[in-house]
Amino acid sequence: MTVDEIARLVGGKLEGDGSLAIRGIASLESAGPEDLSYAEEPRALARARQSRAGGLFVPRGISVPGRTTIAVEWPKAALARVAEILYREAKPASGIHPTAVVDASAEVARDASIGPFVVIEEGARVGSQTCLVASVFVGAHVQIGSQCYFHPRVTVYRGARIGNRVTLHAGVVIGSDGFGYVTVSRQHVKFPQIGGVVVEDDVEIGSNSTVDRGSLGETRIGAGTKVDNLVQIAHNVHIGRNCLIAAQTGIAGSVEIGDEVVMAGQVGIGDHAQVEPGAVIGGQAGVLPGKIVRKGLTVWGTPARPLSECKKIYAHLSALARGGRPADHKS
Amino acid sequence: MTVDEIARLVGGKLEGDGSLAIRGIASLESAGPEDLSYAEEPRALARARQSRAGGLFVPRGISVPGRTTIAVEWPKAALARVAEILYREAKPASGIHPTAVVDASAEVARDASIGPFVVIEEGARVGSQTCLVASVFVGAHVQIGSQCYFHPRVTVYRGARIGNRVTLHAGVVIGSDGFGYVTVSRQHVKFPQIGGVVVEDDVEIGSNSTVDRGSLGETRIGAGTKVDNLVQIAHNVHIGRNCLIAAQTGIAGSVEIGDEVVMAGQVGIGDHAQVEPGAVIGGQAGVLPGKIVRKGLTVWGTPARPLSECKKIYAHLSALARGGRPADHKS
Amino acid sequence: MTVDEIARLVGGKLEGDGSLAIRGIASLESAGPEDLSYAEEPRALARARQSRAGGLFVPRGISVPGRTTIAVEWPKAALARVAEILYREAKPASGIHPTAVVDASAEVARDASIGPFVVIEEGARVGSQTCLVASVFVGAHVQIGSQCYFHPRVTVYRGARIGNRVTLHAGVVIGSDGFGYVTVSRQHVKFPQIGGVVVEDDVEIGSNSTVDRGSLGETRIGAGTKVDNLVQIAHNVHIGRNCLIAAQTGIAGSVEIGDEVVMAGQVGIGDHAQVEPGAVIGGQAGVLPGKIVRKGLTVWGTPARPLSECKKIYAHLSALARGGRPADHKS
Repeated sequence: MTVDEIARLVGGKLEGDGSLAIRGIASLESAGPEDLSYAEEPRALARARQSRAGGLFVPRGISVPGRTTIAVEWPKAALARVAEILYREAKPASGIHPTAVVDASAEVARDASIGPFVVIEEGARVGSQTCLVASVFVGAHVQIGSQCYFHPRVTVYRGARIGNRVTLHAGVVIGSDGFGYVTVSRQHVKFPQIGGVVVEDDVEIGSNSTVDRGSLGETRIGAGTKVDNLVQIAHNVHIGRNCLIAAQTGIAGSVEIGDEVVMAGQVGIGDHAQVEPGAVIGGQAGVLPGKIVRKGLTVWGTPARPLSECKKIYAHLSALARGGRPADHKS
Repeated sequence: MTVDEIARLVGGKLEGDGSLAIRGIASLESAGPEDLSYAEEPRALARARQSRAGGLFVPRGISVPGRTTIAVEWPKAALARVAEILYREAKPASGIHPTAVVDASAEVARDASIGPFVVIEEGARVGSQTCLVASVFVGAHVQIGSQCYFHPRVTVYRGARIGNRVTLHAGVVIGSDGFGYVTVSRQHVKFPQIGGVVVEDDVEIGSNSTVDRGSLGETRIGAGTKVDNLVQIAHNVHIGRNCLIAAQTGIAGSVEIGDEVVMAGQVGIGDHAQVEPGAVIGGQAGVLPGKIVRKGLTVWGTPARPLSECKKIYAHLSALARGGRPADHKS
Repeated sequence: MTVDEIARLVGGKLEGDGSLAIRGIASLESAGPEDLSYAEEPRALARARQSRAGGLFVPRGISVPGRTTIAVEWPKAALARVAEILYREAKPASGIHPTAVVDASAEVARDASIGPFVVIEEGARVGSQTCLVASVFVGAHVQIGSQCYFHPRVTVYRGARIGNRVTLHAGVVIGSDGFGYVTVSRQHVKFPQIGGVVVEDDVEIGSNSTVDRGSLGETRIGAGTKVDNLVQIAHNVHIGRNCLIAAQTGIAGSVEIGDEVVMAGQVGIGDHAQVEPGAVIGGQAGVLPGKIVRKGLTVWGTPARPLSECKKIYAHLSALARGGRPADHKS
């Protein structure tokens, strides 16, 4: 694509030489004349003059002397959109690799791509244009929608339901048993872990993350939610739409999470807690079992508190640590 | 099974129509007339009247008007027991899948079930009725007892010993090298990680958890202990019997853990610490290296303290956060 | 090897019977007459008299009555060096297992060992004497150096570059997509995750750890750095040489870590933070996004502070918890 074609694609305003051919995306520093880049914040814009990029997305009303720019409302988003086209994964060959073991009763779309050493058990369904790269395990009666992409070694336990355009990274486990036992005479007897697990459309889950099935009910991850690596999602958890959950966060059993919630890394949510829509939970914070994080609130710390309260506590402790009297006693 | 048969099985007292056939287990809300459910706490009992369940386990002395109930001492445990029967996994077919790679010197019980893409190396032993679902790796000289169930992609390094009735979920790693180095002239030289690892009878370990082998000694997980997903158990750790260890907990090298210890999620135990029998460690707590958590004590926070002390600290900090003077200064 | 040969190998001073043949390494307690052990600290030296070990490394100037000893400057390091020789893994047979799926365009060294169910995609390179044990996935155009050892189920995404003598334990993922999205009209659109990932020489990474590729730039782990199990390393992170990173630590995007940094378990480093060379970060500590941990400093807590400050805070809180007035108010 030329810079000019890209400008028209995203509805941006071109300044400079639109005839250059663009073959890739790169950072300001590493870009060459065949690369597209972007500059959005003042500091990046200052560095943009030195960039060798063949084209730059910039905010509306901005130009960079000597550089070819495309002015758009959201430069970073425009770059993401162009990247989707430039880096569209070569569609893997349709068909079932001869080493895959696919049960005769499974339904695999003709244009799905089933790689080496994949196992698909009885009654499972794999949708159109879905790709299971290699060594993926699909348990009995699992349903997988269309245009999904499962990286190597994904394991989906029996009966799980996966929507469309779901990306699961290497080593993800969907539908393993929840951690539920009844203690009888000091022995832990397994409580039934026979519920369902649903991963809705457009979800992406990072490497080696684990999602347990429901105990009697259902575990559900809402459409458009993105989950990072090494995250634990326990039985009967319900996660809303368009949430962002960063690495190593753990969500205990029966937690309810609303839409558009953001969790930083290593957060812990105790069982039966509720996180209302739009709440933001800071890194390493711990929400106690049964607690409610209110709509739109930002919380931090363990036990999690509103950020403003945390700041007071940390200011107090900092004063102590430096040998002075706590700030709040100064008066 | 009919409700009546179930009542007799668990020694419970039937009230209502015992002739109904039960085919499944479900929550109060989702149960239909062919499902069994349970209600134990007052709030659940209040909701039980609305349940469409064909039968309900309830505590002794309780009845629910209009509902068929079975009164037992421990309703939840009774349900677990019935679930074991109703949901007994269809026994997988015995035998070795033609794609599995099994060394000629390995001993695999005739009624074991070895799935596709399993690798069993020289001298390994797999016991009676044990099932290795798919893509499981069993290193040289590993010993696995009878009636074990290893989900896809379990990896057991050479020489590990696994007892009977052990369940390992997808992606579990047993016997990888511990994290031990000697630093010589600023280079980290690997200290030998050549010890053993023993997983005793009736242990269950959750998805993608990791258990390292001993350095020179042995790592051991005691009988009946249950471990959740993404837990790390380091070299030379000894864990007692019937412990419960929740998700994302990490136990550093040479830690000693007694019987019936309970750890919530994301707990960290520093190296050489001791946790005595029956202790309870709250979520995200951190026990410092070399410290001892006394028998039966409940601790929380980092560094971990008795729960009663934590509560005082948090009350103090809460008062600060809300702008008042700390509670303990009021006098 | 005899004790005498071992003494000469490490340049140590023998006392006792050098003719004994040594076949293994063991702890003081479990060693028998054919085992070598070591005692370095006073308490270990006190126990050394009871050891049945055929030979003991001890510090210079020390002897143990009735025991055969080799006095060296660094006993533990000497033991590590001998262990390397005694426990050198039997070199796996060269060649490609008949079940492996290797693209015709991949270059695999003739003396590499490619185990069962390994997948090697187009244009990938595997160096001399490298061993891929089983079910390892090597994506397109990946480069792997010589004398590497990848345990079962390692997954390396397309284009990653791995140096020489790199050990990756079971379930490690290298080069998965970073967690980067642009939010447009409340939808999370994937920001391009198309950068590189480089693992330099002599790195070891523990089971089920994950390393994401760069977004536009590169993720890099420096030579000689050792990483424990279940660690998360995000996109664009740069880690220096000879670092030690313990289990379940998470390093967020674009963090810069200098040489010889040590991180204990469950540490969290916020995005764009910097950790300067030689810094030490205590267990469960949290370094906030964008913060700098200065050269050689030891920090702890969340937010991370110099250890001396932490100690003051904890002393204060301890006094509170025990019902007294905080120490710093006593004056």
